[in-house]
Amino acid sequence: MPTPEAFFNAIRCFDPGTLAYEASPGRTSLIEAIQKYYANLGVTLDKGDIFITTGGSEALLFTCLSILDPYTEVIIPEPYYPNYTTFVHAAGGVIRALPTCPEEGYHYAFRDRIEKLITNNTRAIMITNPGNPTGVVLTEEEMRMIADIAKKHDLFLISDEVYREFCYDDKFGVPCMGRFTDIDDNLIIVDSVSKRFSSCGARVGCVITKNKDLQQALLKFCQSRLSVATMDQVGATALYSVEPDYFEKSKEEYRRRRDAVMTGLRKIPGVLVEEPMGAFYVMARLPVDDADKFQQWLLEEFSDDNETVMFAPGAPFYETPGSGINEVRIAYVLEQKELERAIALLGKGIARYRKEIMGL
Amino acid sequence: MPTPEAFFNAIRCFDPGTLAYEASPGRTSLIEAIQKYYANLGVTLDKGDIFITTGGSEALLFTCLSILDPYTEVIIPEPYYPNYTTFVHAAGGVIRALPTCPEEGYHYAFRDRIEKLITNNTRAIMITNPGNPTGVVLTEEEMRMIADIAKKHDLFLISDEVYREFCYDDKFGVPCMGRFTDIDDNLIIVDSVSKRFSSCGARVGCVITKNKDLQQALLKFCQSRLSVATMDQVGATALYSVEPDYFEKSKEEYRRRRDAVMTGLRKIPGVLVEEPMGAFYVMARLPVDDADKFQQWLLEEFSDDNETVMFAPGAPFYETPGSGINEVRIAYVLEQKELERAIALLGKGIARYRKEIMGL
Repeated sequence: MPTPEAFFNAIRCFDPGTLAYEASPGRTSLIEAIQKYYANLGVTLDKGDIFITTGGSEALLFTCLSILDPYTEVIIPEPYYPNYTTFVHAAGGVIRALPTCPEEGYHYAFRDRIEKLITNNTRAIMITNPGNPTGVVLTEEEMRMIADIAKKHDLFLISDEVYREFCYDDKFGVPCMGRFTDIDDNLIIVDSVSKRFSSCGARVGCVITKNKDLQQALLKFCQSRLSVATMDQVGATALYSVEPDYFEKSKEEYRRRRDAVMTGLRKIPGVLVEEPMGAFYVMARLPVDDADKFQQWLLEEFSDDNETVMFAPGAPFYETPGSGINEVRIAYVLEQKELERAIALLGKGIARYRKEIMGL
Repeated sequence: MPTPEAFFNAIRCFDPGTLAYEASPGRTSLIEAIQKYYANLGVTLDKGDIFITTGGSEALLFTCLSILDPYTEVIIPEPYYPNYTTFVHAAGGVIRALPTCPEEGYHYAFRDRIEKLITNNTRAIMITNPGNPTGVVLTEEEMRMIADIAKKHDLFLISDEVYREFCYDDKFGVPCMGRFTDIDDNLIIVDSVSKRFSSCGARVGCVITKNKDLQQALLKFCQSRLSVATMDQVGATALYSVEPDYFEKSKEEYRRRRDAVMTGLRKIPGVLVEEPMGAFYVMARLPVDDADKFQQWLLEEFSDDNETVMFAPGAPFYETPGSGINEVRIAYVLEQKELERAIALLGKGIARYRKEIMGL
């Protein structure tokens, strides 16, 4: 999807003479724009609750460095965004995976299963909602239940909501944990302009918390790296002024892409997949022995009209060894026609691989 | 100093439609520009030796996260850039300070003093050359000696050379540890466009190493945060095409500023200061009891023609408790006239403070 022109226009008009450091917690105009955006979601934030970061990535890294000590634990439903591993490990922390499975549509909001993982070393529960790689979106009741667990056990709840606008069923609305004000001291929201405004290369995100001690720690990390790139903050500020119908149009386009992928996948015999409710991804179990081996074969041996197809093998999205071996993550970030062709190629590839390599 | 127009022009001409992630190790054109810049310094780099980072800050953070385990040690001459503390501590490391003093002009290149600090837990020696906050520049012989220590004890040598172009005595040339090819496996160079091209707000730096294991670790951290801001890398690439006389003009301006500050400081009775050989800073011992208290007094009680002056108190630049109490760091990043007035104000402030507060 194209990045809104507002981003480039704002940067082209910005002529500071000397490109100086911005304030460490972020450019005031951008913080105010985000404050207003959250107010429209029904979430009241002080300016001091928002720390601009270099993408959602830095928000995650600073969060982990702030709240984790060596050997403390973070509960994360698996499969999960693989870079969580690096951020948690950089802080010396340990991931306690909450297993899910394709048979249950990768749903993870089960109170008993989550509470069973909590130990004296647990510091946080971390979720991506809507989910990458599964597309799972929590219902309001599920969000409330997870908030209750965090509150009851005095854990941080790290809610990575960078795909917030991409929910394909109206029942979910625009999800935001920030509406539960009784968990203000527990909640950490990770956010970014990357997906919301199709501007990944801007590297502008933020971390939001009302916990005062955590704010102190985050500020220290923000100060240590001086500031987030000035021009990108200028551009990101402008992004928050796009018309609301931008989100609707953008969501419609991704819904079409998702539907195209699902229609294609359902035609392939033996594929286990549930329709993703949000984000840009679908996780599926393929009727192959090993998705990584299959991917390599697709790249090296397979070709149909001189074309082949590439996906993300599932195993790296899991913490538990052996999980996800025959699963894949498909990102529906291409245009509909290309996606349709890609899924058709996948189907042909599976059929040939099963016959030639698996001898079925 | 103004940022070269090349930065803004390159960004204004860049119109990608969709602002996508750059490659995790950095934009190829920027890596090639840096490769060429180093070739002109007599340092041969492969593209894979250079990792573009979000400022020198991220280069330092990723370096520390890559090479330090909890309780391992880094030897750093003090006073040093205070953010080193955050980066080393984020990785669980410990700073072993190599003390210096204003009486010796903050010089730290003493083989016996450095080797005395090396233990089984030492992983690295970290230097800033030219130095922030002291302005100390290593001679060629001193650089070679420190390289020898790193090699002999198999330590990493982290050489933060972001002020490389700002050496005010021709005998230093343009210092770069990268010329000692026999320490390829030990050396980590931290670099940035912030000072070189007066473009702090671009947040574009790099970390350079030929150590293959370290490259693997750095790549993992680079991948975890996806990429450095795309537009800023486009601008930074253009910066490396400025005419060589840009550096000369820039250095001349800073030399004038340094000379103005030194002339002023030498007129103030009781100030202990040695002429800094590089960077934009001068560290000085003032004839006051406590620089932090004095600074507060300057801001709250002192005024001359409705003006006062601000500097950085010295203590936070030291690891050793009690050190630097009556020292200050002055950054000569303002224009000459303003610097002259600032130092005059400092002199007046010291005189009044000694009389009114210290009773001298």
